[in-house]
Amino acid sequence: MNFTIDREILLDKLSIISHGLSVKSPMKVMEGIKIDVTEQDLFLTASNSDISIEILVKDSSLVIQESGKTVVPGKTFIDLIKAFDSRKITFFLIEDKMLMIKADRKEYRINIMDPNDYPPIDFVTLENPFKINCLDLKKAIEETVFACANNNKNPMLLGVNLKNNANKLVLTATNSYRLSLKTIDVETYDPFEITVPAKSLDELEKVLESYEESLPIELYLSKNKLLAKFNDVLFQTRLLDGNFPDTSNVCPKEKDMKVIIRFNKEELQTALNRIAILSPVEAAKEKEITFNAVVLKIDQNYEVELSSANVQGAGKEIIIPIDTKAYAPLVIGFSSKYLLDALKVLSGNEVEILFIDGAKQFVLRSISDNTLTEIILPFRLDN
Amino acid sequence: MNFTIDREILLDKLSIISHGLSVKSPMKVMEGIKIDVTEQDLFLTASNSDISIEILVKDSSLVIQESGKTVVPGKTFIDLIKAFDSRKITFFLIEDKMLMIKADRKEYRINIMDPNDYPPIDFVTLENPFKINCLDLKKAIEETVFACANNNKNPMLLGVNLKNNANKLVLTATNSYRLSLKTIDVETYDPFEITVPAKSLDELEKVLESYEESLPIELYLSKNKLLAKFNDVLFQTRLLDGNFPDTSNVCPKEKDMKVIIRFNKEELQTALNRIAILSPVEAAKEKEITFNAVVLKIDQNYEVELSSANVQGAGKEIIIPIDTKAYAPLVIGFSSKYLLDALKVLSGNEVEILFIDGAKQFVLRSISDNTLTEIILPFRLDN
Repeated sequence: MNFTIDREILLDKLSIISHGLSVKSPMKVMEGIKIDVTEQDLFLTASNSDISIEILVKDSSLVIQESGKTVVPGKTFIDLIKAFDSRKITFFLIEDKMLMIKADRKEYRINIMDPNDYPPIDFVTLENPFKINCLDLKKAIEETVFACANNNKNPMLLGVNLKNNANKLVLTATNSYRLSLKTIDVETYDPFEITVPAKSLDELEKVLESYEESLPIELYLSKNKLLAKFNDVLFQTRLLDGNFPDTSNVCPKEKDMKVIIRFNKEELQTALNRIAILSPVEAAKEKEITFNAVVLKIDQNYEVELSSANVQGAGKEIIIPIDTKAYAPLVIGFSSKYLLDALKVLSGNEVEILFIDGAKQFVLRSISDNTLTEIILPFRLDN
Repeated sequence: MNFTIDREILLDKLSIISHGLSVKSPMKVMEGIKIDVTEQDLFLTASNSDISIEILVKDSSLVIQESGKTVVPGKTFIDLIKAFDSRKITFFLIEDKMLMIKADRKEYRINIMDPNDYPPIDFVTLENPFKINCLDLKKAIEETVFACANNNKNPMLLGVNLKNNANKLVLTATNSYRLSLKTIDVETYDPFEITVPAKSLDELEKVLESYEESLPIELYLSKNKLLAKFNDVLFQTRLLDGNFPDTSNVCPKEKDMKVIIRFNKEELQTALNRIAILSPVEAAKEKEITFNAVVLKIDQNYEVELSSANVQGAGKEIIIPIDTKAYAPLVIGFSSKYLLDALKVLSGNEVEILFIDGAKQFVLRSISDNTLTEIILPFRLDN
């Protein structure tokens, strides 16, 4: 193996590869990046228990003197290439024991691993792609993945459910106390339903962050894998195995909504951030649902009051709604964290909150975007 | 107690006070901020085992309706005032049990502590000040405090030694493997020598960070305390009790220097950052001194080579000096972290490194500033 390439180009590809790297693995070779140089092409591969990434590096600066394969320790290799300040870097193997990295007056040798020990990666066959726009996918991940469970008795809640029907793709994420529901228009495709680990989507979103334009992404599905292909990158993740809970009845009907209030989003956010300071961080019983518990109260005067109390004190503020479409007195308690998480992903300056009563799940929507629905379950108030 | 003040003004003072706050104390009242409102003035006080801060808040926005004293839980109080977005905030006591914080449509009550439980703070008498410029003091702290020990058999090394002689103030910090030595011109003052805890100087530097202009600072000394007075702030710290080691012979004489080489600072920094990637993080025996061990070698060709090796590989680079004033072949090993720390505080683009031989401490200086000297002890090379 012997090749030269522009540092910037290589570093760009390595920053993608890093999202598939095992940080710590019982199999040392899995902490490595596989470098495969053919007559004309350079391939980089990294893999962990969830994700596998393969990149074909094509660039006019790539000059291959000799083909070959090796596996280098991933973190050290990336750290070194980052720290280099030379424009071009040359790589070659010394007696199949070390990779020499050379530029200007610098010479670094790193101990390599046997490429034959690197397990072959079984990528999904590149047939019948489901096409989606990069920006749409990135946004949809952002808007849903936060609502997944962190750890749950039901492992299916650790992922986002993607369900396609004709030309609508619906993404659903829930930890059973809150739910995020997103719909995207897509080209017509056969119906499918998969649940993708939240961690994998987080990494995919980070990889896509560097793409600002409307890059088309091709998704390929198999029984237990999802492969995303864009530019010369293959990003594959395992799928969660099981049935995602049926959430079709979670979103209440609009006609059942007794209270529909429109708020200035930022005003609500700053009030919640303040009121959360004097909220109990967790209650004894239902830990997650009452995290940063606050109470919202609507009285006869159309006034909306937020309040909280903990051992240090108590807070109370009045928020003036922008508009009230439906109205009834209401007292409801919920996690201010869940509400803040939901507000963060809702676009625009104005949001609508729809309540049935103080005991049922409530709904948040942006005024300017009807593709995203946020649903939060309240906790039972003792008084 | 009943007063109103502009939020911005109060928040500004609270951000100073926070540097003296106990985060966790067996005496709950010490985690509080004491608020003392007299007929005309508002005083804020915070104190921990090292530092006490008192601020007189003077501002045209301050309107006092009623005097009084209280102690509020420090972190919660600061968090709340930060989260407020109102211009003016009103504070008053309810039955000496709670402090009401009110603005616009917001009402927060926090449980208070008994101000009689708050121990009185014995500030040094404001007589015979030692005057120093804010920017000079801030810079001198930055340039020395990093070189203190983190934990050491000799507790005096946990502080910076300040020694005044006529119109020269000398600051010395060392962990016994490296030393930072700074001299400032000051107005003539009686000789003194004190050692100030590094942690206190860190906090003082952070407090002074918001002052960009040449603010005069008055320092007052007692046997075991140092009080800094500026604007309406009193910042007092305890002193370390004991004799700081005599370091007067640590800095070698210029005439003993066999090798004097001038480097471009940034070039040396980037090379060290790279070479440190393949350096052993720590050796078995002398842990601190060999942290990120690298070797510098000068051969017959005037070439300067940096090298390192660990289990993952080895690195080597040639650095071209800007100038060589004195020259002899040399091999010396040292902690790249210590050298990087020293380079960080040396001003200008060019630095001079002066060596006696491979076994003795070496010296770093900026070409453009002779008030700061950095000294590093090498480790013994086995070959």
